Amino acid sequence: MKYSHIPFKTSKTISSELHSKNAKLLLQAGFIHQEMAGVYTFLTLGLRVLEKINKIIKEEMDTIAAEIQMTSLAPIEIWEKTGRKHSVDVLMKTLPANEKAKLKNDSEYVLGSTHEEMVTPLVMEFNRSYKDFPFAVYQIQTKFRNEPRAKSGLLRCREFLMKDLYSFHTSEEDLRKYYEISKEVYWRVFDRLGFSRQDTFITLASGGDFTKDYSHEFQTVCDAGEDIVFRVPSTGLTFNREVAPSKAPTMDQSNEEMKPLEEVEGKGVIGVNDLVKFLGITAEQTTKTLLFENEKGEIIAAAVRGNYEINEEKLRKISHSETLKLTSAETVKRITGAEIGYVGLFNLPSEVKIYMDESMKDRRNFEMGANKTFIHCRNVNFGRDLPLPEKFYDFKTAKQGDMYPETGEIYEVYKTAEIGNIFPLNTKFSKAFGYMFTNEKGEQLPVYMGSYGIGPSRIMGVLVEKYADEKGLVWPDSIAPFVVHLISINKNEQAEIIYKTLQKNGIEVFYDDRDVSAGQKFADADLFGMPIRLVISGKTGEKIEWKKRTEEKIELLTIDEILQKLQK
Amino acid sequence: MKYSHIPFKTSKTISSELHSKNAKLLLQAGFIHQEMAGVYTFLTLGLRVLEKINKIIKEEMDTIAAEIQMTSLAPIEIWEKTGRKHSVDVLMKTLPANEKAKLKNDSEYVLGSTHEEMVTPLVMEFNRSYKDFPFAVYQIQTKFRNEPRAKSGLLRCREFLMKDLYSFHTSEEDLRKYYEISKEVYWRVFDRLGFSRQDTFITLASGGDFTKDYSHEFQTVCDAGEDIVFRVPSTGLTFNREVAPSKAPTMDQSNEEMKPLEEVEGKGVIGVNDLVKFLGITAEQTTKTLLFENEKGEIIAAAVRGNYEINEEKLRKISHSETLKLTSAETVKRITGAEIGYVGLFNLPSEVKIYMDESMKDRRNFEMGANKTFIHCRNVNFGRDLPLPEKFYDFKTAKQGDMYPETGEIYEVYKTAEIGNIFPLNTKFSKAFGYMFTNEKGEQLPVYMGSYGIGPSRIMGVLVEKYADEKGLVWPDSIAPFVVHLISINKNEQAEIIYKTLQKNGIEVFYDDRDVSAGQKFADADLFGMPIRLVISGKTGEKIEWKKRTEEKIELLTIDEILQKLQK
Repeated sequence: MKYSHIPFKTSKTISSELHSKNAKLLLQAGFIHQEMAGVYTFLTLGLRVLEKINKIIKEEMDTIAAEIQMTSLAPIEIWEKTGRKHSVDVLMKTLPANEKAKLKNDSEYVLGSTHEEMVTPLVMEFNRSYKDFPFAVYQIQTKFRNEPRAKSGLLRCREFLMKDLYSFHTSEEDLRKYYEISKEVYWRVFDRLGFSRQDTFITLASGGDFTKDYSHEFQTVCDAGEDIVFRVPSTGLTFNREVAPSKAPTMDQSNEEMKPLEEVEGKGVIGVNDLVKFLGITAEQTTKTLLFENEKGEIIAAAVRGNYEINEEKLRKISHSETLKLTSAETVKRITGAEIGYVGLFNLPSEVKIYMDESMKDRRNFEMGANKTFIHCRNVNFGRDLPLPEKFYDFKTAKQGDMYPETGEIYEVYKTAEIGNIFPLNTKFSKAFGYMFTNEKGEQLPVYMGSYGIGPSRIMGVLVEKYADEKGLVWPDSIAPFVVHLISINKNEQAEIIYKTLQKNGIEVFYDDRDVSAGQKFADADLFGMPIRLVISGKTGEKIEWKKRTEEKIELLTIDEILQKLQK
Repeated sequence: MKYSHIPFKTSKTISSELHSKNAKLLLQAGFIHQEMAGVYTFLTLGLRVLEKINKIIKEEMDTIAAEIQMTSLAPIEIWEKTGRKHSVDVLMKTLPANEKAKLKNDSEYVLGSTHEEMVTPLVMEFNRSYKDFPFAVYQIQTKFRNEPRAKSGLLRCREFLMKDLYSFHTSEEDLRKYYEISKEVYWRVFDRLGFSRQDTFITLASGGDFTKDYSHEFQTVCDAGEDIVFRVPSTGLTFNREVAPSKAPTMDQSNEEMKPLEEVEGKGVIGVNDLVKFLGITAEQTTKTLLFENEKGEIIAAAVRGNYEINEEKLRKISHSETLKLTSAETVKRITGAEIGYVGLFNLPSEVKIYMDESMKDRRNFEMGANKTFIHCRNVNFGRDLPLPEKFYDFKTAKQGDMYPETGEIYEVYKTAEIGNIFPLNTKFSKAFGYMFTNEKGEQLPVYMGSYGIGPSRIMGVLVEKYADEKGLVWPDSIAPFVVHLISINKNEQAEIIYKTLQKNGIEVFYDDRDVSAGQKFADADLFGMPIRLVISGKTGEKIEWKKRTEEKIELLTIDEILQKLQK
């Protein structure tokens, strides 16, 4: 392709305050165009990258599923059936845009944010006997999610491409078998897309909306990522923050003597930061106690070392609750006798279930709310002031410096971006739609499902975040818009011949045939980030300058040498 | 691909009362799945056809434009700028689907039914100097149109693929040059897609919403089509019905004597059918006179031979009106003195502009409303009862039997389906968005635009309508999901070898590896419509049965002979 074929120019005025790194560079290079926050048009070169990503994904998915293409418009009823019409907070619906349109057809539709609701009734029309299983379908299709914040360029869009695959099984065991195979296929995709297994992990993650079980995510180290993962060095086992089991750094105070319990009046001293300043102690010496109420009306008091957050999801599971919410100020008053802000574990009514995080353990002379308005206790000690519980739990959100409880190793902690996820949906959707199959004995049993996602446009953004440098984009060979970026400096005739020679030999070549300065051509080549830059000029004679985007070294080569290198 | 890879079955229960021919066959074959009226999922084999269509379109468009991919979500403002937010009667907008979503982000967007509104501001950011012109961009992208009636399968969908191309020029002349080139490119696409130039035409069509000039459509003969085209046999010039100039069959009554004018009371006798019965005359002898009002408040009386309809678009142009609407009953009363239903051309106030269609000419003793309630006149004659007008016009809707006025040839008339359209938008959108370019002299001038559409999914439906037979689908070689449909009857080992041999030789082969009856396999092969069926069975020995989908002849060939035939 020639540069003159593309009616888009590079720009120098894209603000890095308004745009994330990936959006800024892709906008600057004219690879994408922003329509609204989180809504991007793919321009010619950007679209080539996206399509190469799609092609790799497609080739690998074809080995384990049949491709289809579902629609974005969905009948409202199927989203009512699963209840997600009312619960998905990024879901959009459509309406006629004007009165004229309303008169002609006033139907409303859901605009698909994902396709479990559509695929389940679809495939159940065709596959009802055990003989039809297992099977899987996938698509690469546009999703609509009205994200409240869409500020990470291609990493979080309101309209974006998704590869979504759905698998169907007659047993949980068969689902699990396929689930493991899908991990291997995903690794092949990510290998081919240029992700390194050195800094890309399969993490255990929460099942989210879909399941109370875990799901898995593929996370790659990335400063712009929205996730934090915790990795066990010896085993490589990796967790998303929200599910990472954690053991806090030990506070060995066994040499310290118990000091006398003190009650300190601190009107308006609320929260760890206030306490640290007011009492002149460390955050580790404070205690955070919160009261929750579950769906059964049980009151749960949960206490952690003051510099931790309580992970409600962990606490929910430990306390065998379906849902948890913080109690109201009135309930706090009723239970503790004090205003909110001074809760501790002293003298709680017997109805209250007390849970202590393991970070509470082994401390001496720590602080805790006194259950009296304005009063904090200091020099609290187990055994003397507070009974030592039968058991400590782990319901804090893991932090840098925490240990993996089973081995005591300190976690490696990484900022990461999600590039894929796989969910065992089990029977959630088959039950909602009454999708049963007939087994060998003629019995009707629910179908097991899995769901497997990769966002091609998101992948493109993540690769920019990871590999671009101060000069511009840097593309892995497999997805670069073109392999070769050809520049001629006043040697257009020779360049035309080289351009055609490369094309004839099946090399994807981009030729900057514009009438602009050499400096502009070089700068744009760096900005576009194609793997190989070839230059011919007065200085190169019959030879051609060869330079890799990622290296400084320049070689003078003949066209034959270049073809040989490229065909390798 | 093996049949067992596809989790979709053929069906025998698709109703031809509920579905058009193309939808019925594609549903029956498991090529598509209906989600709602006009909303279809493409299943594995259907998607392969669609993607082959896309590939051909893409290869040809790449020769004249740069590919991009715009979004479906558009800011409401750009649709306000052109006024089409309020006028497009199939336009949809999006809203949050529930209260939770509304709280997080209550933005509304337009869901694109076409992309002039989006592409114009996009490209004007990059191209403002005459040096940047001409250029063109295109995409193959999903469109949303909330069609009130969506009953023609893939021919009219609410969500469908569209190839839309937009070209940009510094003059009308340059636009016209590109416009002519686009016709050639379109022909190459349609040739490759299997349309014959024998029964596919470029027709002159109305400019629709876009322009008061003409546009052009590619129309192919098709019983299920929604259009009727009129073709001049000697020149091949073809018109869409709504713009076809027409000369009515001559009514030579010169030998007939003028009969005395009669007034006949016919209370409630309104309209041509009533009159024909009531007066015992032919429809040709009646006259249809309608009163219109234009945007200037002028009253226009238009009269045609009773068996014709008035074409308002033609009349609008002839009467130099911007808009025309039928007058109210009150106005009819005021102008004619009579109730509605008895309008004629007698004694109209001088403010009324009278237009007579050429079909009025050369008649004698014809009928006409008397401008008196309940009264019709018969035996009306020019010269005696009604002054002969200075000029007759052509503002009727053309009908079978009509002539092309310039040559007097009787039109060939075809029922057709539109498969592509091209519009000279001229400056409509550049003016709405203030898109000006700077010419050589530094002057600011408006940009000229063209718009060029092809609907790939519609094309698929039209090809089914045209070529399918009573046994099922019939695909042109270029877009068949696979070239070869391989069937084994109890010779699975040999079939597996042939399957792999064909694949190794680059032949696209579909292998029915199911454990079903031979009859079912043959029926499905016919239904799927791939060009070549290969069968191995006990009867075929070492050889293989070769049959074309469109022929009855069966040959016994060796695998080498088959490869030779296929590679041709």
